[in-house]
Amino acid sequence: MTNSRFDVLCLGNAIVDVIARVDEDFVTGQGLVKGSMNLIDEARAEALYSAMGQAIEISGGSAGNTAAGVASLGGRAAYFGKVKADQLGAIFRHDMRAQGVAFDTPSAEDGPATARSFILVTPDSERTMNTYLGACVNFTTRDVDRKTVEAAEVTYMEGYLWDRPEAKEAFKLAAQIARAAGRKTSITLSDSFCVERHRDSFLELIRNDIDIVFANEAEITALYETRDFGAAVRAISQDCPIAVVTRSEKGCVVVNGEELRESPAFPVNRVADVTGAGDLFASGFLVGYTRGKPLVEAARLGSLAAAEVISHIGARPEINLREHAQAMGLL
Amino acid sequence: MTNSRFDVLCLGNAIVDVIARVDEDFVTGQGLVKGSMNLIDEARAEALYSAMGQAIEISGGSAGNTAAGVASLGGRAAYFGKVKADQLGAIFRHDMRAQGVAFDTPSAEDGPATARSFILVTPDSERTMNTYLGACVNFTTRDVDRKTVEAAEVTYMEGYLWDRPEAKEAFKLAAQIARAAGRKTSITLSDSFCVERHRDSFLELIRNDIDIVFANEAEITALYETRDFGAAVRAISQDCPIAVVTRSEKGCVVVNGEELRESPAFPVNRVADVTGAGDLFASGFLVGYTRGKPLVEAARLGSLAAAEVISHIGARPEINLREHAQAMGLL
Repeated sequence: MTNSRFDVLCLGNAIVDVIARVDEDFVTGQGLVKGSMNLIDEARAEALYSAMGQAIEISGGSAGNTAAGVASLGGRAAYFGKVKADQLGAIFRHDMRAQGVAFDTPSAEDGPATARSFILVTPDSERTMNTYLGACVNFTTRDVDRKTVEAAEVTYMEGYLWDRPEAKEAFKLAAQIARAAGRKTSITLSDSFCVERHRDSFLELIRNDIDIVFANEAEITALYETRDFGAAVRAISQDCPIAVVTRSEKGCVVVNGEELRESPAFPVNRVADVTGAGDLFASGFLVGYTRGKPLVEAARLGSLAAAEVISHIGARPEINLREHAQAMGLL
Repeated sequence: MTNSRFDVLCLGNAIVDVIARVDEDFVTGQGLVKGSMNLIDEARAEALYSAMGQAIEISGGSAGNTAAGVASLGGRAAYFGKVKADQLGAIFRHDMRAQGVAFDTPSAEDGPATARSFILVTPDSERTMNTYLGACVNFTTRDVDRKTVEAAEVTYMEGYLWDRPEAKEAFKLAAQIARAAGRKTSITLSDSFCVERHRDSFLELIRNDIDIVFANEAEITALYETRDFGAAVRAISQDCPIAVVTRSEKGCVVVNGEELRESPAFPVNRVADVTGAGDLFASGFLVGYTRGKPLVEAARLGSLAAAEVISHIGARPEINLREHAQAMGLL
């Protein structure tokens, strides 16, 4: 295996988050299930936006957040994702590069606008996401730059890509290239509804092509169609080398073959917005992993990064996570 | 005088703020004076943006912030300002309307993009603004809707408009229409450098066409070319019926002819970003004024609104200011 140029390459839907605080009634009135992620079309996006209060715009996208977190922790990060050549696309690209992430996927010149996720944050700090995929539908195997995949120690992909057939093919191609180059592959299951939509092909992929799986409780139990968390953990331990299952404030379980280890969450004074918790957990874990740290220490780094991102609005780190982790003795 | 349809009509540069936290060295390295407002051209905007870290986008513009604050306090607000028909323009319009502000100035179909202000927030929470006026240069007398001006109790205008000759003409036309309709006019001096650029014509306007002047210490002393705050206050008391001079944490001085009254600032636990403090002070004062409250009580409302906006990033209120003011016994 040649030397790597990147620690982590992330593939995902390139999305600008449009975040507004709303009350519970607004979520109910819009017919939404609080805490869910919904895919919406352009007409629905316009109707929802018209009904929403004033918002802030901030770059997001699950794997985009993870890439930003890797870079903030001092890791070498790259990103593949599709924006349009429009103002929101320019913002997304700027923010990625400003964080130190290599992001060279060409912008789409035609077709739908850069993707937006309308994120409604209720007073309990829970988030309900409504994603218009826009230009993401143009992400295809042509956007998988072979040299970059071969040069990354870990290729990490969000399950959300599975929602578009072209993106799914790109995802699979990246995994194959990574494996052939002797690199590691990783996936986040993204969302329990996403798991419901793609259970069989997720399982096939995990069993054959993935080294590290990230999931939360709802996603892992959805994957194995069980209400028994322990049973789901045992099942994933049979299906892939490493799995990390996050449990919000209860911390996480690191599954490494026969070995199960628990790792606590970092305390947070005030949770402002849970968006990005899982994404930033993956950032921390993967930075620890690529530095050869014991997996429970990698999980601690994940918890640290997750704790920072939920302490404020928006799913990208607001501070230099590397300095923060060093101050906490974790890097 | 017929019944009013609006309490406050605000005229200003329609700007989307692009806000990033930076260290002191970045401000110095970019050749900027901390705390200043700089007008920049498109090339400089691109260079600065490339050099900046990841940012958040949020609707801004001085008088736009004031209009949003008026609406948040339960006042009837309208706004005149020019965006382009682009994504940032759509965001600006959405945020204005979502806050309940009537905003019907047509978007420019051609010409420069919607204006942006690159706001650099240093660790001391001070902000250094770099504004690319973009589409604002297309704001002209044609955008002054006579019926709306005649229907507003107070027409409030930002001094920044003076930086463009067409906008200055629009500003003057609005003041004339308001006065002819028996309404009140108000101006904020905006920025001490803005005052330096336009001192003579500001003084002429204030002496002839303005009922209520908002300024801070630096602006009022710049206007009268003195270092003596008391002398500047005495001078403004001769030049217009009402002046409110804000002094950050020292509160403000309300000048009403011969009468001078001081009003304290509201305490703030943690100042996060001073952007918008003066804009939101004007919101509160004008809502109190149009409800016929004593001027010192109107100033307390201003202080309350300013305290909220500096407690977080961004220059628009994050909470319902009306409920907040009611809870504090001010409305």
